[in-house]
Amino acid sequence: GYARVDTHRALRTGDPEVIYAAGKTPEQVTAIAARLHEAHPEHPVLVSRAEDAHRAALREAFGGLCVDDPIARMVSVGPPPRPQGGRVTVVCAGTSDLPVATEAAFTARVCGADVNQVTDVGVAGIHRLLAARDTLAAADCLVVVAGMDGALPSAVGGLVGVPIIAVPTSVGYGAAFGGLAALLTMLNSCAPGVTVVNIDNGFGAGLAAARIVRGRKENR
Amino acid sequence: GYARVDTHRALRTGDPEVIYAAGKTPEQVTAIAARLHEAHPEHPVLVSRAEDAHRAALREAFGGLCVDDPIARMVSVGPPPRPQGGRVTVVCAGTSDLPVATEAAFTARVCGADVNQVTDVGVAGIHRLLAARDTLAAADCLVVVAGMDGALPSAVGGLVGVPIIAVPTSVGYGAAFGGLAALLTMLNSCAPGVTVVNIDNGFGAGLAAARIVRGRKENR
Amino acid sequence: GYARVDTHRALRTGDPEVIYAAGKTPEQVTAIAARLHEAHPEHPVLVSRAEDAHRAALREAFGGLCVDDPIARMVSVGPPPRPQGGRVTVVCAGTSDLPVATEAAFTARVCGADVNQVTDVGVAGIHRLLAARDTLAAADCLVVVAGMDGALPSAVGGLVGVPIIAVPTSVGYGAAFGGLAALLTMLNSCAPGVTVVNIDNGFGAGLAAARIVRGRKENR
Amino acid sequence: GYARVDTHRALRTGDPEVIYAAGKTPEQVTAIAARLHEAHPEHPVLVSRAEDAHRAALREAFGGLCVDDPIARMVSVGPPPRPQGGRVTVVCAGTSDLPVATEAAFTARVCGADVNQVTDVGVAGIHRLLAARDTLAAADCLVVVAGMDGALPSAVGGLVGVPIIAVPTSVGYGAAFGGLAALLTMLNSCAPGVTVVNIDNGFGAGLAAARIVRGRKENR
Amino acid sequence: GYARVDTHRALRTGDPEVIYAAGKTPEQVTAIAARLHEAHPEHPVLVSRAEDAHRAALREAFGGLCVDDPIARMVSVGPPPRPQGGRVTVVCAGTSDLPVATEAAFTARVCGADVNQVTDVGVAGIHRLLAARDTLAAADCLVVVAGMDGALPSAVGGLVGVPIIAVPTSVGYGAAFGGLAALLTMLNSCAPGVTVVNIDNGFGAGLAAARIVRGRKENR
Amino acid sequence: GYARVDTHRALRTGDPEVIYAAGKTPEQVTAIAARLHEAHPEHPVLVSRAEDAHRAALREAFGGLCVDDPIARMVSVGPPPRPQGGRVTVVCAGTSDLPVATEAAFTARVCGADVNQVTDVGVAGIHRLLAARDTLAAADCLVVVAGMDGALPSAVGGLVGVPIIAVPTSVGYGAAFGGLAALLTMLNSCAPGVTVVNIDNGFGAGLAAARIVRGRKENR
Amino acid sequence: GYARVDTHRALRTGDPEVIYAAGKTPEQVTAIAARLHEAHPEHPVLVSRAEDAHRAALREAFGGLCVDDPIARMVSVGPPPRPQGGRVTVVCAGTSDLPVATEAAFTARVCGADVNQVTDVGVAGIHRLLAARDTLAAADCLVVVAGMDGALPSAVGGLVGVPIIAVPTSVGYGAAFGGLAALLTMLNSCAPGVTVVNIDNGFGAGLAAARIVRGRKENR
Amino acid sequence: GYARVDTHRALRTGDPEVIYAAGKTPEQVTAIAARLHEAHPEHPVLVSRAEDAHRAALREAFGGLCVDDPIARMVSVGPPPRPQGGRVTVVCAGTSDLPVATEAAFTARVCGADVNQVTDVGVAGIHRLLAARDTLAAADCLVVVAGMDGALPSAVGGLVGVPIIAVPTSVGYGAAFGGLAALLTMLNSCAPGVTVVNIDNGFGAGLAAARIVRGRKENR
Ligand SMILES: Nc1ncnc2c1ncn2[C@@H]1O[C@H](COP(=O)(O)O)[C@@H](O)[C@H]1O
Ligand SMILES: Nc1ncnc2c1ncn2[C@@H]1O[C@H](COP(=O)(O)O)[C@@H](O)[C@H]1O
Ligand SMILES: Nc1ncnc2c1ncn2[C@@H]1O[C@H](COP(=O)(O)O)[C@@H](O)[C@H]1O
Ligand SMILES: Nc1ncnc2c1ncn2[C@@H]1O[C@H](COP(=O)(O)O)[C@@H](O)[C@H]1O
Ligand SMILES: [Mg+2]
Ligand SMILES: [Mg+2]
Ligand SMILES: [Mg+2]
Ligand SMILES: [Mg+2]
Ligand SMILES: [Mg+2]
Ligand SMILES: [Mg+2]
Ligand SMILES: [Mg+2]
Ligand SMILES: [Mg+2]
Repeated sequence: GYARVDTHRALRTGDPEVIYAAGKTPEQVTAIAARLHEAHPEHPVLVSRAEDAHRAALREAFGGLCVDDPIARMVSVGPPPRPQGGRVTVVCAGTSDLPVATEAAFTARVCGADVNQVTDVGVAGIHRLLAARDTLAAADCLVVVAGMDGALPSAVGGLVGVPIIAVPTSVGYGAAFGGLAALLTMLNSCAPGVTVVNIDNGFGAGLAAARIVRGRKENR
Repeated sequence: GYARVDTHRALRTGDPEVIYAAGKTPEQVTAIAARLHEAHPEHPVLVSRAEDAHRAALREAFGGLCVDDPIARMVSVGPPPRPQGGRVTVVCAGTSDLPVATEAAFTARVCGADVNQVTDVGVAGIHRLLAARDTLAAADCLVVVAGMDGALPSAVGGLVGVPIIAVPTSVGYGAAFGGLAALLTMLNSCAPGVTVVNIDNGFGAGLAAARIVRGRKENR
Repeated sequence: GYARVDTHRALRTGDPEVIYAAGKTPEQVTAIAARLHEAHPEHPVLVSRAEDAHRAALREAFGGLCVDDPIARMVSVGPPPRPQGGRVTVVCAGTSDLPVATEAAFTARVCGADVNQVTDVGVAGIHRLLAARDTLAAADCLVVVAGMDGALPSAVGGLVGVPIIAVPTSVGYGAAFGGLAALLTMLNSCAPGVTVVNIDNGFGAGLAAARIVRGRKENR
Repeated sequence: GYARVDTHRALRTGDPEVIYAAGKTPEQVTAIAARLHEAHPEHPVLVSRAEDAHRAALREAFGGLCVDDPIARMVSVGPPPRPQGGRVTVVCAGTSDLPVATEAAFTARVCGADVNQVTDVGVAGIHRLLAARDTLAAADCLVVVAGMDGALPSAVGGLVGVPIIAVPTSVGYGAAFGGLAALLTMLNSCAPGVTVVNIDNGFGAGLAAARIVRGRKENR
Repeated sequence: GYARVDTHRALRTGDPEVIYAAGKTPEQVTAIAARLHEAHPEHPVLVSRAEDAHRAALREAFGGLCVDDPIARMVSVGPPPRPQGGRVTVVCAGTSDLPVATEAAFTARVCGADVNQVTDVGVAGIHRLLAARDTLAAADCLVVVAGMDGALPSAVGGLVGVPIIAVPTSVGYGAAFGGLAALLTMLNSCAPGVTVVNIDNGFGAGLAAARIVRGRKENR
Repeated sequence: GYARVDTHRALRTGDPEVIYAAGKTPEQVTAIAARLHEAHPEHPVLVSRAEDAHRAALREAFGGLCVDDPIARMVSVGPPPRPQGGRVTVVCAGTSDLPVATEAAFTARVCGADVNQVTDVGVAGIHRLLAARDTLAAADCLVVVAGMDGALPSAVGGLVGVPIIAVPTSVGYGAAFGGLAALLTMLNSCAPGVTVVNIDNGFGAGLAAARIVRGRKENR
Repeated sequence: GYARVDTHRALRTGDPEVIYAAGKTPEQVTAIAARLHEAHPEHPVLVSRAEDAHRAALREAFGGLCVDDPIARMVSVGPPPRPQGGRVTVVCAGTSDLPVATEAAFTARVCGADVNQVTDVGVAGIHRLLAARDTLAAADCLVVVAGMDGALPSAVGGLVGVPIIAVPTSVGYGAAFGGLAALLTMLNSCAPGVTVVNIDNGFGAGLAAARIVRGRKENR
Repeated sequence: GYARVDTHRALRTGDPEVIYAAGKTPEQVTAIAARLHEAHPEHPVLVSRAEDAHRAALREAFGGLCVDDPIARMVSVGPPPRPQGGRVTVVCAGTSDLPVATEAAFTARVCGADVNQVTDVGVAGIHRLLAARDTLAAADCLVVVAGMDGALPSAVGGLVGVPIIAVPTSVGYGAAFGGLAALLTMLNSCAPGVTVVNIDNGFGAGLAAARIVRGRKENR
């Protein structure tokens, strides 16, 4: 049965309950979400990698309680909290990276962060990045999303002194090897302050960023 | 010549100036350190991956200005600042991981963090980790260092809600593939809040942790 | 023709006859099963990786002789024997690992073991694993199934002194590389007593576990 | 300090205390061994991957208490127990695999197994293996060690119904890739009952085999 | 246009003209086959990796001239020559390997060899292989096809003194990595006289075997 | 013997004769150089990867004819021609990349190019690169050398419309995998006009650059 | 929004504006193309990796302005300029490489080069390549496209002194590993003057070739 | 002990007895050689990968019986037989490949073949290969040895109709990955009739070639 669902993680860590929908039926996802929601109705329950069928089943089960983002492929059962943390800015290189970047932004928001996004600032047109420098410097944490060569975090890391979480994406072909090229670039970044998450793991980046900025708002 | 040394990074990012000594002669390292120190004598200059010969040359050139850590293979020309940021706790699985863990701790300290270390809490004896839980929860950022299976950050990530920087080490043999096994484990961690740096990159983890806790002290 | 089907393996090794259905037509699978069943009607014939069409063909051919497990994608032609060996406990980290875990459990049962299952005890909520410790210690052999970071066997191996067969699954994405990350984690486990089988190979783990506990029941 | 040495693992798991000497100084190894020996003088303390200097230091510190095997690169501080478990037979393909095979045999013996060895039965001369079949069938657990093509466990697995732990070695060159070829062969073995440990991990195989045969002797 | 089709290879090398149909339209394949057939109507034109549509188009264009093997996915436009070379024996481990084994057999036949096949002699039941030893020793060249662990050529190589071409197949899952495991096993075979071709390359093995036995018949 | 030395390549391709000294004795290198020099005394003979012993032997044999660059580990027997081609500018990220960058520069010079170098313009301090933009735009071909994350060519490619040859270096550690990370980054560069050579292959980059700028001088 | 489209790259680099259609909807592609076309109607806008739906949408939006190449999967909005640069010759080994070769040719043409193509000159019939030698030598830049073994650029590089851009394709199976084999061959080419782009990256090769031959026409 | 040395392989397979000296002491090698020589004094005993110390010990033990080739790193105890088989021609690309090529030639000779060598015919100067065509066509089996790009067998395979055994060598650097690049090239060769052995495995190629030409001499 579902006897061992971990209903106390939020108490231990402050993070929301999360269901990874890939490989689960809509019924399974809805049932687990119901159990988590009943245990702590005051916390949003986050569902990631939700296909259309998952999202439809959740909307049917929870109605107006659902906040649904089709680009991020995410649903929050229960509204995100009002931003109680600092500012997370999610930066990405191109439009193909938007699903992952949006997943990061949605997650950080549900985790309590104040989130904004900057798109289309790839290193192949470096002046666009320089033009965004003040926005980047004003964040408490940056999530930098890029596929193909994955070079964007290296350029950002030398511009500002903010913590940077780099997210490689599987955008590309051939020797991109499904995001491996971007992952290796980011792990070897010469720029300071860059840490990395799994390929396409916008969720993990958003949650880690929210942990970093938790309790930051009042500082600014 | 040395005409393009980046003497203004500290101003842009708040990080110290750093010299990566691997592949440089002691003379080169000392000369670059002198230039950086002259430009901003009030900031420490950090030297990483310093062999004995590098450290000897630096001590000869800068005398009492040097703070030297042979386990971390690091030298700071100029003392670390008084801790102005929050608390970074560096955790490692076993004694073989100490060089990397100490590199992280030394770097974070020179970057202004208040640092402590917890050693020998590998998952194969999970009660040791549980016994350290309060120490872990009290930190503003955790650096978790592990080789071989790299499983430690997964266990830590579910215990506390603190940001976690995981550092895989090259400790192990065979299918450890020089740290690749631990790296992949950490990138795939099921636990929330974990981000990852390059294999053996204690320096990068320490600097990123210091960025995260900058300005945190006053909050606590 | 099918002239070289190995109808004597059961006599040499005590294991059941097995047909790997992937890449075979339902007709081929049914024909081989018939030949093996005729040779030794007292032994169950096991069919692994059986799609719906394979299972339908087998039920049509053998009727009530079939024991069918759709989650494990397995059919036994002929009922499993009454447990004559010791206890195999199959542990898994999450619900996505259930197909592989169930394949292991079904196989071990057909091979004569007394089998039970423990689900949803991933390391990201370590207290769930600790709560199951007595159940784990009571087994004669543990099969531990996990995807993504594959960290579960490392935590189990330090808790109890029972033989552990670790099964990496292909659950995950990005740098999980189809189960490679979990495989490497398990091969590098710091915990004692862990051996490993191929990615998603619940069948192999179940059979090996049954060999281990054969003749154990009377000891307990 | 050494404050977190896990002195209770033997109580939890029944395995001996073990020190992995690689990357530790002789002084560190001797000091840890002393602490473990003092905590439980009745249990042997096992030291693996011990170079000459480690072994000399241990003999100087513990004198006649040491049992030293230079081929296995192992020392036991305190004698192995009298065999209380079943029979472990360690099989290897060629003389180049002897260090790893001997490490497995020595470990299993210190863990309480009754151990014997069969050498030079590679598949390229299959009659040698067939000639040893009765010896193999008489064991309670087989440890099968092979480098290069790693084909030996596949041949053994179809001959006898005994649990088999396969150990790939780094013997070979070129596309052996340091033992990777043998590792993959073993993970993909078509023969039933084969589980696998890390490349060159005789220690892990010996300990797992000893867990398997624990309490077996009385059965035979 | 098709101006550079190499119509003289048969003259230089004695091998038939071959068209690799994968990625070509049925029309392209038929047109190229027509050109090659017109240039040398006395030589068969071989088409490999031919899908149903390719085969239908060829039969429509060339009618009774076509010899079609759906398991091998091959068509010969023009009948194979009467065997003018020695004997090629194609051996395979299991029924899943039959498409590749049959591709090798069909190719060798079209290249002039006298071909027979031995199936289902995997190393997990080594007595089946020993029973076929005289057949193997009677060949002038062996093609040995195996997936998963790829161990069969190692066992064959020590039994007989015949040249052996090993063909790894992509049969398997997980750490079989699409045939990589079997490929590495074969490249590292401890047995003498084994050479290897690409994964699933029955065509290449059959052609190389035919070159080896060319002119052998009269010797026997 | 040395009967097949290719003494006519210069006539076919216009490139100098080159000897790869790695794995050759000083005597072998000197003898081959003598033969090539005698065949075409008017062309320089280039020796790459020359250790101290190779260079000493060449200087002893050819005296003042040798132009020797110890950083590039190269010797030219016979002076470089006067620049008859366009301008090649060799750019590198850091001082650790200088051996490879210098190899490229030396080679291009011996091949007839007009060469200059720009050092220490890594992306982590992007203003240094922007400051060099006019120098970069003035070249007929750029060789861009970088290790670790290999991000520099991506930034350069969007700044100027000049052909760019990217050279990954083996500078770095851990997941740099001996230059693989930088190589993949460069192959996946989002910036236009970037082509790539082998890791550490300054020679190949310099020669290709010289081919590109051959006959360019008169255009400017 | 689309606020950061880089409408000035053509001014900085002279290359056309390019849209990578993979992963974009036809509407997105058409909208971006419209914006780029409006900004600089005198420059063609290039769309790569355009599926049928993308091409249909572009033709509907831009009508006769579109130049469409279904083999190259490319559309140019606005006609290619009259050739103002030198000659680019695109060479490929077989018909399976034509999509990539045609992508290179189309791109180079839109970038202003004078382009021709040579097909079906693989090294397995080396006389075909030798017959084309004068055509090859007459080019200002060669783009050499090959899959499987990727050996063609090595043969070309020793024949002529022209810059060579090698393009590995994903044509092949098994140990071709999706183009990796050809990529590694080309990176290790013993022939001089060869640089390499990503697997299947005809676009990148064509653009780099056009940069190389820009301003060459008047020289000939 | 040495109880299982396989002294009957020669009778089963016709190949000589072989000792792989790597990882054995000179004493071990000499003792095994003595046993094999005593068992069949009429057959030569071959020792491969013999360092200077191995060779000195063998010469001391067997005196004039030894035939020693320092380039091949081989010793034959007992003279090679008079050529009773056909002609094996060993071809290599460059002088760096000579140790591997010579190992193949020496082995084939001891196995009874009539052997000659062709050196320095790399594809970068294809006319040298064409000039040797008649020599190549006259052989009964070709062994083609090449490092770096490994392109030579592809060129040879289309020139002549002789069986070809390709041997990749570890000559090269960077993305040669210790011979992996050449290995993959050869496995993917577009030319017919090419089979492949392990990286640097001149021994295996020589033995397989000798098996192929056995009994050929009388045919010519
Ligand atoms: N141990 C290290 N690992 C990774 N990056 C480092 C390390 N030490 C210094 N760095 C980075 O390398 C740069 C200095 O490189 P360099 O100019 O070659 O001395 C600094 O900006 C640091 O960000
Ligand atoms: N799921 C599985 N994974 C790995 N090996 C298997 C599996 N199922 C069956 N086998 C093995 O494959 C053999 C049967 O293969 P086949 O003769 O092709 O049906 C049996 O002897 C089993 O040992
Ligand atoms: N087929 C292609 N392969 C690699 N890069 C491309 C390709 N087509 C376009 N690009 C690059 O991708 C950029 C456009 O990406 P986007 O803004 O996502 O349309 C352009 O600047 C090109 O340099
Ligand atoms: N250089 C070599 N490379 C690969 N296999 C070899 C080599 N030399 C000898 N062998 C094989 O290794 C076996 C001898 O191994 P060993 O008994 O360890 O001396 C022989 O049967 C040979 O087939
Ligand atoms: Mg864009
Ligand atoms: Mg410890
Ligand atoms: Mg769960
Ligand atoms: Mg042996
Ligand atoms: Mg079978
Ligand atoms: Mg620098
Ligand atoms: Mg063709
Ligand atoms: Mg040469």
